[in-house]
Amino acid sequence: MEFRFASRMSQFTSSAVRDILKLTQGKEIISFSGGLPAEELFPAEELKSAYSRVFADRRVMQYGLTEGLPGLRQLLSLRLSQKGIQAKPDQLLITTGSQQSIDLTARILLEPGDLVITENPTYLAALQVFQSSGARILGLDTDENGIRADLLEAALRDNKPKLLYVIPTFANPTGAIWSLERRQEVLQLCSRYETVILEDDPYGELSFEPSTLPPSLKALADAAGFPGVIYTSTFSKTVVPALRIGWAAADESVIRQLAKAKQSADLHSSCLDQAALAELLEGFDLDGHIRRIRAEYAGRMQIMLDCLRNDPVFAGITVRPPKGGMFLWLELPGEADMDTLLRLAIEEGVAFVPGTGFYTDGQGNRTIRLNFSHSAPEVIREGMLRLKRAYIRCCSQSGMEAALS
Amino acid sequence: MEFRFASRMSQFTSSAVRDILKLTQGKEIISFSGGLPAEELFPAEELKSAYSRVFADRRVMQYGLTEGLPGLRQLLSLRLSQKGIQAKPDQLLITTGSQQSIDLTARILLEPGDLVITENPTYLAALQVFQSSGARILGLDTDENGIRADLLEAALRDNKPKLLYVIPTFANPTGAIWSLERRQEVLQLCSRYETVILEDDPYGELSFEPSTLPPSLKALADAAGFPGVIYTSTFSKTVVPALRIGWAAADESVIRQLAKAKQSADLHSSCLDQAALAELLEGFDLDGHIRRIRAEYAGRMQIMLDCLRNDPVFAGITVRPPKGGMFLWLELPGEADMDTLLRLAIEEGVAFVPGTGFYTDGQGNRTIRLNFSHSAPEVIREGMLRLKRAYIRCCSQSGMEAALS
Repeated sequence: MEFRFASRMSQFTSSAVRDILKLTQGKEIISFSGGLPAEELFPAEELKSAYSRVFADRRVMQYGLTEGLPGLRQLLSLRLSQKGIQAKPDQLLITTGSQQSIDLTARILLEPGDLVITENPTYLAALQVFQSSGARILGLDTDENGIRADLLEAALRDNKPKLLYVIPTFANPTGAIWSLERRQEVLQLCSRYETVILEDDPYGELSFEPSTLPPSLKALADAAGFPGVIYTSTFSKTVVPALRIGWAAADESVIRQLAKAKQSADLHSSCLDQAALAELLEGFDLDGHIRRIRAEYAGRMQIMLDCLRNDPVFAGITVRPPKGGMFLWLELPGEADMDTLLRLAIEEGVAFVPGTGFYTDGQGNRTIRLNFSHSAPEVIREGMLRLKRAYIRCCSQSGMEAALS
Repeated sequence: MEFRFASRMSQFTSSAVRDILKLTQGKEIISFSGGLPAEELFPAEELKSAYSRVFADRRVMQYGLTEGLPGLRQLLSLRLSQKGIQAKPDQLLITTGSQQSIDLTARILLEPGDLVITENPTYLAALQVFQSSGARILGLDTDENGIRADLLEAALRDNKPKLLYVIPTFANPTGAIWSLERRQEVLQLCSRYETVILEDDPYGELSFEPSTLPPSLKALADAAGFPGVIYTSTFSKTVVPALRIGWAAADESVIRQLAKAKQSADLHSSCLDQAALAELLEGFDLDGHIRRIRAEYAGRMQIMLDCLRNDPVFAGITVRPPKGGMFLWLELPGEADMDTLLRLAIEEGVAFVPGTGFYTDGQGNRTIRLNFSHSAPEVIREGMLRLKRAYIRCCSQSGMEAALS
């Protein structure tokens, strides 16, 4: 029997990393590829204790509201208000991770042929969502302050797109952060052209210099009375990913539509996970925990950066040290092919993500993304040695000059 | 700012029950409306103990495979093989409840304009999924043995639809069950026309006479070598709904597509819930637990049925006692309007679901669905007294004759 799959399924390009990692199962690979938090920092005991308390109320095991547990939304509302985001519980939707917020936003807004504006490069799995909805995607270049406002204005004026998708704080994959001025400028443009902004903020809590962090677009929009920002974030990076609990904060009319779409998608997210998270938020110093994560990740980033900067082999590589998040973004010199480098790296026992997949237009063949949050310091050092061996082999194969240490 | 929502959002018709229940918040309503299991039967202690064990392995708190935890899929594979379903772990996808299996199936198969065949009436939230995908829906009548094969053959021959969606065992809303012969006949037809069957089986475990239950379509298809059945079920009715853990079993090529769609939808389902469920399945007599649920639900069904049959007020109502599941399906005589009856029932303090929403074509205005699984026996009796008062008022308002007790 021949299965007649929908044409959108051919849009899902298979991830190079997934394919290569499949071939290397059983090998000891040091992975700098995923956006994974450090397992040894997970608050396991506190979570275990939170789960032990949720079963006291049998109703929490029953079907729940699509919008999410009222108690969790109340706690979240308070937490967001401390960050300048005005979101009453009715302006919040609990999702199965922030990936679902992106997917639901696409469902409520996009028709086939609609245009979505993104940064270029941007989060790969968001591009997949937009592609599978049949939307066209226009990626705009960024400068050191964020998405280029001149390009954005032209794109909004010419196309009146429904949606702008951005990660203004510790972008994926580049780790860059938008300036306050650029944020204001983008808000004014989107307000003028009535374009909804989906602000994806999974990494905002992971700032190495929290006092210098500009407010989120959503906080600025709330202060200015602009209702067009859908803000999404997650507990995946601050508590644990396995929970799959994220949220969307938006105008109540938008939340109502997102909830309709979610009801049809999966009825609601796990009430047990939601209830345990609510228990955790009440009894645990999450902000203290986040401070510990930040300090550890800042240290790991520095170690990885030092490995790159202190080795003459890597001299031609450009890297901008990020002020938070989970990623180093490298631009490599010359003609090296990143798929070749990845294949050699896997042979040497280390993995990364080639940059091309993050681009909307096939660019990025000399870029790679390295994750520094997941690996312990000694693992980072070993992984960077392996990457160096792969890089030397890659340069020699492609006839590039690489200083040999 | 005016939000430009996608046109599919206008397809989501607001549920009458949700609207009315909103107006009655704070009132003491006995609800026969939802497909809710009995809370007092939840294995709370066993679940609590299962969760206490999952945190021993920190990796379970990390991001997981889109397809689901290998250990859980292994256990599920064994469990399904006992029911004649041949599903290796690679032929299984763990979903955020079986609602997500329906949604993902629609995503991988349906393009706007495609035709989906369903039973008429059928599960309301499946209709919502198909509507929102832009598909056309053709509901076919059923007789006492299942969906009518003559109507199905004509529909397959004329339209070559990609998808047939059915609930052959304790259908929602009618509680009906297809005969073995009809199952075989439908499989042969779909095999001939290469139409995929989505077999939704949330209630199959809740049989009051398990020994007489015919095999699932999927089991019959596996025995016959027909790869075109996607089978979905859930632990919501047998363990607890709040977990949101369901699954799809299908040909490996279909699972691969479903997994791609799931990755874009929510990356993966909660690993903590999956791991706890795996712990539970290993250490807990789930089948013994299901036997207790069956016995209790059979008793509750009988009580509700007796309330209907032993009261002359309800004499004109047609009801076929179901052999399992969670619902009684009533056909009422005369001209009574079910929205009026619902309004009066809410005033009296009891809720049900009017049948119209389950139909693909506006039929069903003299039908209602009653849930018997959620309410304790004494609550069922009180609820049926309230329903009787509402029914008498409704008949008198609409000029119908109702025997007064």
